[in-house]
Amino acid sequence: MRCFSVVSLFLLLGVLSTGSGLAADDEKEQAVKKFTVYPIGWVRKTDGHTTIVVDKKYQEGLLGLDQFKEVWVLYWFDRNDTPEKRSILQVHPRGDKKNPKRGVFATHSPVRPNLIAMTKCKIISVKDNVIEIESIDAFPDTPVLDLKN
Amino acid sequence: MRCFSVVSLFLLLGVLSTGSGLAADDEKEQAVKKFTVYPIGWVRKTDGHTTIVVDKKYQEGLLGLDQFKEVWVLYWFDRNDTPEKRSILQVHPRGDKKNPKRGVFATHSPVRPNLIAMTKCKIISVKDNVIEIESIDAFPDTPVLDLKN
Repeated sequence: MRCFSVVSLFLLLGVLSTGSGLAADDEKEQAVKKFTVYPIGWVRKTDGHTTIVVDKKYQEGLLGLDQFKEVWVLYWFDRNDTPEKRSILQVHPRGDKKNPKRGVFATHSPVRPNLIAMTKCKIISVKDNVIEIESIDAFPDTPVLDLKN
Repeated sequence: MRCFSVVSLFLLLGVLSTGSGLAADDEKEQAVKKFTVYPIGWVRKTDGHTTIVVDKKYQEGLLGLDQFKEVWVLYWFDRNDTPEKRSILQVHPRGDKKNPKRGVFATHSPVRPNLIAMTKCKIISVKDNVIEIESIDAFPDTPVLDLKN
């Protein structure tokens, strides 16, 4: 009996830990406390060219982007994806201790609860799944979450 | 012995299911295919006032925001959070079928693989954890992911 009780406890914990995403829409605010985002592409920097290489499966989403001179790029500050860095709420702007501390929501700091970066880039060309841009303030191989005109 | 084997299996499954986020930094691109974002607050519309009510636990992140006239608000298109809507890659801009289809990455469409919205709002006041804004193109009770100056 004691054996089954232990197994039942594990089963119960499993159900509890996966059950919270199943609530009805009208209960979403209380029930859903998180959302999932996926890389749609990656920043690449090779041979003096800076590109966003979009995953082939999202290539259709680029239709018409070549009509624009600029694109908003939302990317993930993946180097900072730790619970510690995501719990930082105040920083010295531009990392300069002479600047008085400011809340991360009043900055573009790369540490913040949700590690979403937002920057506007000049488009050089769009070919198949590759957007060549003039430059971006992101490390090579950074995951890109979204593009907007 | 059989009893301990069953318990060990559950323990092992637990370790396997949580272990994928622990990969070394240089393996991140292959290992991490998704990221988690959390609401830091909510859009509220009551008595003719539009506010962003930030979760109390993130209130420190607002320090200094009152110095600014505007704030970028990143929010989640939570009404569209279904696999079907997140797989739409082309739309008629502004929902008008007379507009030729365009890739979602060349629009601000509320359907897109990652349901992140981005809009600039005029700040009326910042008091404790509440930012009153002039208006926002989001439904009441929309989850807010980030604020930037």
